[in-house]
Amino acid sequence: MRAAERLTFDPDDERLARAAWSRLAEPGDLRVHALLTQVGPGEALRALVSRDVEWMERFRPRLAELEPARDLRTLASVGGRLILPSDPEWPTGLDELTAPPPCLWVRGPLALDSLAARSVAIVGARASTAYGEHVAGDLASGAAGRGFVVVSGLAYGIDGVAHRGALTAGDSVAVVAGGVDRAYPRGHEGLMAVLVREGAVVSEVPPGSAPTRSRFLQRNRLIAAMTRGTVVVEAAMRSGALSTARCAAALGRPVGAVPGPITSVSSAGCHELVREGRAVLVTDAAELADLVGSLGADAATPAPGASSPYDELDEVALRVADALPVRSGRPLDRLCVASGLDPATVQSALGRLALLGLAERHAHGWRRVRSAAPSRA
Amino acid sequence: MRAAERLTFDPDDERLARAAWSRLAEPGDLRVHALLTQVGPGEALRALVSRDVEWMERFRPRLAELEPARDLRTLASVGGRLILPSDPEWPTGLDELTAPPPCLWVRGPLALDSLAARSVAIVGARASTAYGEHVAGDLASGAAGRGFVVVSGLAYGIDGVAHRGALTAGDSVAVVAGGVDRAYPRGHEGLMAVLVREGAVVSEVPPGSAPTRSRFLQRNRLIAAMTRGTVVVEAAMRSGALSTARCAAALGRPVGAVPGPITSVSSAGCHELVREGRAVLVTDAAELADLVGSLGADAATPAPGASSPYDELDEVALRVADALPVRSGRPLDRLCVASGLDPATVQSALGRLALLGLAERHAHGWRRVRSAAPSRA
Repeated sequence: MRAAERLTFDPDDERLARAAWSRLAEPGDLRVHALLTQVGPGEALRALVSRDVEWMERFRPRLAELEPARDLRTLASVGGRLILPSDPEWPTGLDELTAPPPCLWVRGPLALDSLAARSVAIVGARASTAYGEHVAGDLASGAAGRGFVVVSGLAYGIDGVAHRGALTAGDSVAVVAGGVDRAYPRGHEGLMAVLVREGAVVSEVPPGSAPTRSRFLQRNRLIAAMTRGTVVVEAAMRSGALSTARCAAALGRPVGAVPGPITSVSSAGCHELVREGRAVLVTDAAELADLVGSLGADAATPAPGASSPYDELDEVALRVADALPVRSGRPLDRLCVASGLDPATVQSALGRLALLGLAERHAHGWRRVRSAAPSRA
Repeated sequence: MRAAERLTFDPDDERLARAAWSRLAEPGDLRVHALLTQVGPGEALRALVSRDVEWMERFRPRLAELEPARDLRTLASVGGRLILPSDPEWPTGLDELTAPPPCLWVRGPLALDSLAARSVAIVGARASTAYGEHVAGDLASGAAGRGFVVVSGLAYGIDGVAHRGALTAGDSVAVVAGGVDRAYPRGHEGLMAVLVREGAVVSEVPPGSAPTRSRFLQRNRLIAAMTRGTVVVEAAMRSGALSTARCAAALGRPVGAVPGPITSVSSAGCHELVREGRAVLVTDAAELADLVGSLGADAATPAPGASSPYDELDEVALRVADALPVRSGRPLDRLCVASGLDPATVQSALGRLALLGLAERHAHGWRRVRSAAPSRA
């Protein structure tokens, strides 16, 4: 194991220093974040080189190969940019994390500061069903069409469909666990290319970094923190999408979950979120907007369902309507017996029913107007 | 219209008097209930005959044809019994209604007082889907197998399947909107016959009464009040099953709703109940028992999902596991670079991974044990 005695770059260049820390430390490292906040990235690098701080010894193996200028060149070669917390484009939601990333490696034209105003994470299982994919695509395009930037994780299954659905109607951002220079999974190379061209692809680790399991878990906290809220579409009981939901809830962001058949293991995680009161049940893009949008502008109106003229009737008129025969008219005294009401009340109800086109005179009595037959409740 | 000047039976016979009131008044009549409570059913009949009370005039048309002894003979001819509020068999849950029925017309061997201890209403749409029917049957047999009497409304769709599912494993009770002497709908004659033989069929209106729309709505309040809780399986936005749920909630009884595909209108009412916080999401019989059963005895344990040895690992061990190659071993210093951890930490993590059978020594380093490859979260 070699141990570098000096840095090959100027630690007071904040871009280089932060790029270096994103290479040295794994995502979510609390002590590194504390150190960077307290002394700044350059001073922290000097402490590492000087071997003053014992807990920092663990970064020494990576120090030997550290070359942030090369990482930035790689990023530039794919048209990307490094975003620092002090940059105007920095998505400020990240600052609410206990350990925000030292910087973001970004490709694509979409400015990330737009996420603060109107965005939603739509995430879910890789092992999705045709139902879940249909729903995720609909929700994502509905959300994007309402001006929400749809953020997801570029995974197979729900994530991929969410990106594609969003791109049909608006903007989408992928937050990935490895470097932004290559697609993971490889099968989403084409989708990533579209996001790089029309949206954005974001990572907290430098180009060339492998998407390890722990980086996937840490990546989920970025998705939760960068967005105004998270909606889970299909998640089995231990799905990684649930960690995004947990993180969003911990940050006080609204969480939604889409229900599905209880016979589907792919919906079990969503149902559990709702059962435990950790997520609001979401069934369409209007309800998604209601959950993560601005109060007032996005309030969902409950679906009305089919209406019937009988819905307007009071109990008395309903009873009289029930007592009306369909074929030949029934006389008033028989209507009183059938409805259990006195003649004056029945007569007044018949007047209202006739006005509504629900009753008509026939032979020596009254009958129901056929097209208006009530269905049993 | 004839107007009887005298009663053809003894109004001080409480059975006859209450049977008479269930013929005279429509279900849910608040003034009649208040009168019966204040002066008793016999005195109330005398007031009606003497024409002392103006609002009672509406009962006079039916008074002319009133013959409760005949209704009781019809009931006896089909093997039924009349249950009064003072009878030990009276389901005491009904007393919490604002207007309980004056009596119940009942067929079948099941004693209704058993409902107070352990019962559940499983109700839903007539326009059910194959999914809803599958779920309702499963839930009902699971509930009945756990000793809950399953109460429903004998309707087509969810109700019918709930009765049938319950009968495979335990007891079921139908509460109907018309008289207990005939089946409505006619297609459920066979099902009703089974319930009459093995469970119970209950109505608050006398034999021969038609199941009118207003009686259906009032019948729902009986189902809600007679049971310890209500679970809705499939309900469109205006389904009558929602009125049962509303009534149960108004009585302070727990309400559950089964989710389904958001693309199914038959589940929209269930989703709305959950969204509005008026129902708990229920996905199996254990959760149903948790909702409507006794505290402690019926507490549902969350479904565990598939477990993995990686679930037990802390962040550090996960990182080391991620750094292990599958084929040939990787030396310690490379594992430090890959994991971003110092040698002592990596060594200690490797020890734990080896104990769990997740890592092994190979060539000049360590590798992952193949069968234990972690999946991406």
